[in-house]
Amino acid sequence: MEANTCKQDVLQKKKNAILVDGVILNGPITDSKAGEKFVEEACKIIMEEIIQKADDVTEKVCEWRAPETLKKILDLEMRDTGESHQKLLQLCQDVIQYSVKTNHPRFFNQLYAGIDYYSLVARFITEALNPSVYTYEVSPVFLLVEEAVIKKMIEFIGWEDGDGIFNPGGSVSNMYAMNLARYKFCPEIKEKGLSGLPRLVLFASEECHYSMKKAASFLGIGTENVYFVKTDERGKMIPEELEKQVQRARKEGSAPFLVCATAGTTVLGAFDPLDKIADICEKHDLWLHVDASWGGSALISRKHRKLLHGIQRADSVAWNPHKMLLAGIQCCALLVKDNSGLLKKCYSAKAAYLFQQDKFYDVSYDTGDKSIQCSRRPDAFKFWLMWKALGTTGLEERVNRALALARYLVEEIKKREGFQLLLEPEYANVCFWYVPPSLRKMEDGPEFWQKLHQVAPVVKERMMKKGSMMLGYQPNQGKVNFFRQVVISPQVGC
Amino acid sequence: MEANTCKQDVLQKKKNAILVDGVILNGPITDSKAGEKFVEEACKIIMEEIIQKADDVTEKVCEWRAPETLKKILDLEMRDTGESHQKLLQLCQDVIQYSVKTNHPRFFNQLYAGIDYYSLVARFITEALNPSVYTYEVSPVFLLVEEAVIKKMIEFIGWEDGDGIFNPGGSVSNMYAMNLARYKFCPEIKEKGLSGLPRLVLFASEECHYSMKKAASFLGIGTENVYFVKTDERGKMIPEELEKQVQRARKEGSAPFLVCATAGTTVLGAFDPLDKIADICEKHDLWLHVDASWGGSALISRKHRKLLHGIQRADSVAWNPHKMLLAGIQCCALLVKDNSGLLKKCYSAKAAYLFQQDKFYDVSYDTGDKSIQCSRRPDAFKFWLMWKALGTTGLEERVNRALALARYLVEEIKKREGFQLLLEPEYANVCFWYVPPSLRKMEDGPEFWQKLHQVAPVVKERMMKKGSMMLGYQPNQGKVNFFRQVVISPQVGC
Repeated sequence: MEANTCKQDVLQKKKNAILVDGVILNGPITDSKAGEKFVEEACKIIMEEIIQKADDVTEKVCEWRAPETLKKILDLEMRDTGESHQKLLQLCQDVIQYSVKTNHPRFFNQLYAGIDYYSLVARFITEALNPSVYTYEVSPVFLLVEEAVIKKMIEFIGWEDGDGIFNPGGSVSNMYAMNLARYKFCPEIKEKGLSGLPRLVLFASEECHYSMKKAASFLGIGTENVYFVKTDERGKMIPEELEKQVQRARKEGSAPFLVCATAGTTVLGAFDPLDKIADICEKHDLWLHVDASWGGSALISRKHRKLLHGIQRADSVAWNPHKMLLAGIQCCALLVKDNSGLLKKCYSAKAAYLFQQDKFYDVSYDTGDKSIQCSRRPDAFKFWLMWKALGTTGLEERVNRALALARYLVEEIKKREGFQLLLEPEYANVCFWYVPPSLRKMEDGPEFWQKLHQVAPVVKERMMKKGSMMLGYQPNQGKVNFFRQVVISPQVGC
Repeated sequence: MEANTCKQDVLQKKKNAILVDGVILNGPITDSKAGEKFVEEACKIIMEEIIQKADDVTEKVCEWRAPETLKKILDLEMRDTGESHQKLLQLCQDVIQYSVKTNHPRFFNQLYAGIDYYSLVARFITEALNPSVYTYEVSPVFLLVEEAVIKKMIEFIGWEDGDGIFNPGGSVSNMYAMNLARYKFCPEIKEKGLSGLPRLVLFASEECHYSMKKAASFLGIGTENVYFVKTDERGKMIPEELEKQVQRARKEGSAPFLVCATAGTTVLGAFDPLDKIADICEKHDLWLHVDASWGGSALISRKHRKLLHGIQRADSVAWNPHKMLLAGIQCCALLVKDNSGLLKKCYSAKAAYLFQQDKFYDVSYDTGDKSIQCSRRPDAFKFWLMWKALGTTGLEERVNRALALARYLVEEIKKREGFQLLLEPEYANVCFWYVPPSLRKMEDGPEFWQKLHQVAPVVKERMMKKGSMMLGYQPNQGKVNFFRQVVISPQVGC
């Protein structure tokens, strides 16, 4: 009887089957119950293998494998037929095992580290909702959140008003600023391009981020037209040298339009003297952009915001809350002092299919046309939820603690044999050499430095193969390979 | 007794406290147990409110509130002190409630929709691991995965070899291609910029994506130097018109360097005739870029890949697996035929702090210098895990089914009173007018079209306020507002 009903069901279904081009269109094709179960099981792995281990110093920070070996371990090949859930969960385990644990308490390799549980939740929400932030109709919450966050960041810069947008990276924010400054300098470039115009020139310190060169190249300005300004022994731009470079550009008949100051350089953590630079910009009518991707977070701290003294005089600021504040990669804002709609005028292309003007709501909330992107992620949201959770005081504590940890590290380095500080840090970048016993008695001279240059890569290799610690190193301005340690993770304690 | 031990503990701790600048540095400052619990509780909400409801047609696709109202509902203000976990979980609930459910079976508003459980898991993993993809040392797995995915995509394009990179959006991929073509045309532009050079000119169809104009403006080429080529009645570039435009540019003494063909236009879903366009590019020595952000996924289908006939002759291709294949926003590749390192030569800035050459492994795996970004998300990974799960056959089914659903929709539209098809679609974009009863007997003429133009916004408003469906509309090339419906979600069935 049952079998009979079942047979009739099948016949009935076949009869009602909607078949187009050989594809049966009835019902969804995904097994949502199985899918949900898979997500649940994977989440358990994520919780146990990543989140719960994030503060566990006894775990390895990385499980090093050489590329060729790792290729063999991971089953990278994509085949015609899919894999079972069991196999896929194993694959997820492997991916986690061989990935670097950037939230491990011994990960000091980059300018991000640690885990923030609130930001993480926000990120899970947005991944599940899968929004794109361009119009209010598809991203009502995330657009309002972005507006609120930008407003708050502007307050901390010290502007009365302004505008802004979140971008996929500080490098992209710097590009935005460069293009915006160029638009302000000569709006016709948007339509006419640079051909036939005098050579545009911009200025940045020798210690600025490499994205300045990338931006100049990408924007058709040319890397040679970034005039690098000398820095002092601490890595800070020398205002008098900036003045000289501007004069030089003028004499050459080129068109200076922009100064990119840095608040918190990548390697040394140096802050350019913004107030003096702003004076020069005012005098020569140049746009002042401050790349505070790294140093911007100090604005949150009443104690340390003086590092950015004068920032309120900037025309634009790049600031990445994904670094010291732990908002998660990527969370990068470009903030603009102008409030006359410059950002929109500079970037808009007015696509009729997306930014219809006959919508039933106030289309000034459709801010997507301020972007070079079309689809764009809601990166402001994770910062917002974290801020709601910790309060400004909690964010301030992160900054104060990171800088106190840097001070502590400096003092420890001074005490320990074989460690040599490169310079007293202004910010959280602690730069030092490790001098191995074999070199400690050697005379200072080219041979010593040549040998010392080879030490950091070897130490790093050993630490990585052991999985004990990850730490960045680099040569810089004639100084041989040294370590740069930045301790920002709230999971790290002395 | 216990209290006493406790007191001694506190005294002991105070004695050992490491205090720097008023900050106690002992131990981590986060309560990891409470944090983990918060993540668990939030994940439960995400599972119940987003993931489990993703295939539920009885839910609303959106809970519309006007901006001012929504601002009042959401507690957007960031304060000095943080909120309780309970308050934060409520906030998460609110965010979800008032966000558009882009994975709802009635969301047809953009070129993405639906939910893929595997891609979602991959996204949760990467959010928890918080990697940045630039060097093998910090992203070993994700760099190898990106390499494998790019290799596979290149196979489907039909190139023997090639290179590529994942970017935050198809718009950014198009920019990359434009810059790459320019670099190939004249490598000195990287250093010297465009000043003093003849006017560079590129060609794209009238129906191309608006990112072409954004790119031309951003790259300093200028929007006026995008020469728009006429399309036929189906929205496809007319090769003879392209030839004319190239001739015109040459006569003007400008420097044509690039043709951007489109495989799957945004509004009509039209495919430019790539083979004929490639002939013209060959003849005039122009770089051929194909913006297949939308149409590229058809390459996976043996049945439909003929839409992109000739694509193997392109020099570069933009292809977004986050659209029809559901890899999740954003997942966008730029693929390049050149395998001589052009991408790296064009983009590299050789930052010494990141791309050290004295590393202990093969630094050719440090591919980050191919990018304009510094930190970059591992977007290839979600596509990879999804591909592993579904197999090529599963991806192919998605494409075949989307196009079969489009055929089905077309036939239904033809049958129903008051619905009028704009044109027979080539791809998944079904464009139609809804003619309300009041207009059905009206004579064809300017008044009719003027009135019809006002219909779509009103219908859309009603649907959104009801939460029943979201559907895009736009005017296009002299045609009044019409709906564009794209059915790609595997959760949709007839």
